Amino acid sequence: MSVQNTVELLAIAAKKAARKLAFESTTRKNNVLLSMAETLQEQKEFIQAENDKDLLAGREKGLSEAMLDRLALTDKVIDSMVVGLHEVVALPDPVGEVEEMIRRPNGLMVGRMRIPLGVIGIIYESRPNVTVDAAALCLKSGNGVILRGGSEAIHSNLALAKVLQEALGSENIDPAAIQVVPTVDREGVNALLALDEYIDLIIPRGGEGLIRFVAENSRIPVLKHYKGVCHVFVDADADLDMAVNIVMNGKCQRPGVCNALETLLVHKDIAAAFLPMIGSKLVAAGVELRGCPMTKEILPDIKDAAEEDWPAEFLDLILAVKVVDDLDAAMDHIAKYGSQHTEVIVTKSYANSQRFIKEVDASAVMINASTRFSDGGQFGLGAEIGISTTKLHAYGPMGLKELTTRKFIVYGDGQVRS
Amino acid sequence: MSVQNTVELLAIAAKKAARKLAFESTTRKNNVLLSMAETLQEQKEFIQAENDKDLLAGREKGLSEAMLDRLALTDKVIDSMVVGLHEVVALPDPVGEVEEMIRRPNGLMVGRMRIPLGVIGIIYESRPNVTVDAAALCLKSGNGVILRGGSEAIHSNLALAKVLQEALGSENIDPAAIQVVPTVDREGVNALLALDEYIDLIIPRGGEGLIRFVAENSRIPVLKHYKGVCHVFVDADADLDMAVNIVMNGKCQRPGVCNALETLLVHKDIAAAFLPMIGSKLVAAGVELRGCPMTKEILPDIKDAAEEDWPAEFLDLILAVKVVDDLDAAMDHIAKYGSQHTEVIVTKSYANSQRFIKEVDASAVMINASTRFSDGGQFGLGAEIGISTTKLHAYGPMGLKELTTRKFIVYGDGQVRS
Repeated sequence: MSVQNTVELLAIAAKKAARKLAFESTTRKNNVLLSMAETLQEQKEFIQAENDKDLLAGREKGLSEAMLDRLALTDKVIDSMVVGLHEVVALPDPVGEVEEMIRRPNGLMVGRMRIPLGVIGIIYESRPNVTVDAAALCLKSGNGVILRGGSEAIHSNLALAKVLQEALGSENIDPAAIQVVPTVDREGVNALLALDEYIDLIIPRGGEGLIRFVAENSRIPVLKHYKGVCHVFVDADADLDMAVNIVMNGKCQRPGVCNALETLLVHKDIAAAFLPMIGSKLVAAGVELRGCPMTKEILPDIKDAAEEDWPAEFLDLILAVKVVDDLDAAMDHIAKYGSQHTEVIVTKSYANSQRFIKEVDASAVMINASTRFSDGGQFGLGAEIGISTTKLHAYGPMGLKELTTRKFIVYGDGQVRS
Repeated sequence: MSVQNTVELLAIAAKKAARKLAFESTTRKNNVLLSMAETLQEQKEFIQAENDKDLLAGREKGLSEAMLDRLALTDKVIDSMVVGLHEVVALPDPVGEVEEMIRRPNGLMVGRMRIPLGVIGIIYESRPNVTVDAAALCLKSGNGVILRGGSEAIHSNLALAKVLQEALGSENIDPAAIQVVPTVDREGVNALLALDEYIDLIIPRGGEGLIRFVAENSRIPVLKHYKGVCHVFVDADADLDMAVNIVMNGKCQRPGVCNALETLLVHKDIAAAFLPMIGSKLVAAGVELRGCPMTKEILPDIKDAAEEDWPAEFLDLILAVKVVDDLDAAMDHIAKYGSQHTEVIVTKSYANSQRFIKEVDASAVMINASTRFSDGGQFGLGAEIGISTTKLHAYGPMGLKELTTRKFIVYGDGQVRS
């Protein structure tokens, strides 16, 4: 059977299973999640034996130690998957919620009921823990899921899928609701992206290259962010100690993630006071600074910022620094170079805080807080299936609710239209 | 200049204008709408002279009288546009609403602020009143709009756009926020659909052919419905008089629209009682019935239903009729042949009403009411920009709120992540 046929059959089965899963009770879905947690622990040896095949192949292929580390399903990683499953059990189930029920003049009651999207395709790179996390969130929100992980993790992912499907079966729910694409080539991804008849949404997770490939080749709607070029603007009257903390946290706490700080914008009136303060701290923390000409007048020892530094997502201990004339110049810079991920102002000005919140177009706009809070868990969504920087359907971190939509429901007593 | 360049320049200008329009006050947007209403009346003669060019060309091209009628900008049509603009003024402005503001354990206040989508492309067929309606709804929701109407209405649409842009200018809002594509060939549509860098959403309005063309060729997300194959299921214990009213209203009140009834499903236990009642009424109203074999046993004089009648959107006085074993058979039929538009059950059974509401996957699911209520105005949205039968972003009739999205806003006092 061709890869295309294999993937199409998976998708047809997933859609059929999803139709029933859409109205399973929360209790049954939670029972499946608990059974998954149990089965994961019971079948740890089988999972780790399959994982060893991936690790061996990875070593032969010359994967870096960091990559192998992310791939390994150690006891600790499996334990954290189990904890994750229990956390999803604890989340409220959005399905079936009815909102905005109103009574129309003719007596019709019109409301909106939250329902699953249908079948969700997740395309991701190596870490196999995504397999369990994503499957759990899709299950809890009543969606079927088709998972296509990195080729390096294929044995691990298939083993995890087997365990998850057994748990579904043990609760008499169609195991086809959770699928792993069994092939490792790009053909499998292409086949998936063509199945708009069966799959309702694609969420890619990984590097910009993967995400662009998915977005450009998909016939199915894609929720995604390419990158996070996050800014902090330190306003003229900012609390400078607060600004130092926010900048240090944004840049240094975890530089390799999409909500890390990439460009610092400083109001010209406080540049002479603030830049030496923050500069020495950043340099002491190992951060390479790349400054505009005005920044270099104050910090002459740092590198020059090139034009390509402004839209760059460094994902590393590198920070671009620019002195700007005022709030408008800062917002213009953000509009031009930002990625609509996360933007921060540090200010004591009420007027400027309100203008920034209102006028900056980004999925998360913050006053006096670190960019690093831009995250589903930190925002109180309970979990995160991804981040969207496109505006349709969801903008920003996506939790369970973003895996659902709403249908209109109408209660009548015989009304007809005149 | 090539068509592609022309359309790209329009889109760039619209995006620039939309960036500012996004945070204009409601008062200023309403002032523009009122000024539009005034200018429409003042420039009626100019508009009608341009409309005459389209009518003349249409007559030469051999358009039907019905088509010419839809194209004509009579005094009455212009008056109704003016009324429509006043109605949009009266609608609440969704932009800037903050929802779900919560306090996180670290003191951060996290909420979601409603914002415009950006630039919306509307692609539609002949009726030029869409130009004013759509422009008004996009303006009120803070979006730029690029309109591409039917080739038959090009002079009328350009004249209306000129009037609308003057109204924007008179309130010192960038007139580029409302654009009409000045060319009439498919090349203009193709150029528009490629501009995903500047346009955030495409809404096509028209026949299935146009909508399929747009969906298949767009790089931009499309909100659409191909067709409305709406069902009424008359349950075993339905109030038969109520069922007659609902079926007659669904089929006969306005058969050419997407929320008209296309297939009647009847529970086998009441078929012998109900079908003669409704059959004679429908036939008397000029409706052609096409029945399944069991229907024909009761109504032997009607036509046989063919397989292709079940998924058909007749848009005419034709009704397919099927007798089904029970609620499950009715829901299976709807799942197989429905278009996820609008589905109705007529029943006195509490249990069946609840199962139907929960289990039927359609953008509008109703109990004991006519399919004809599936409409933004009837549902209380105030206005309708279109109907979506795909689940991402919006499902069902779309009003002003569906032309917006939400960004996260965060108020901190110096929080950093540990």
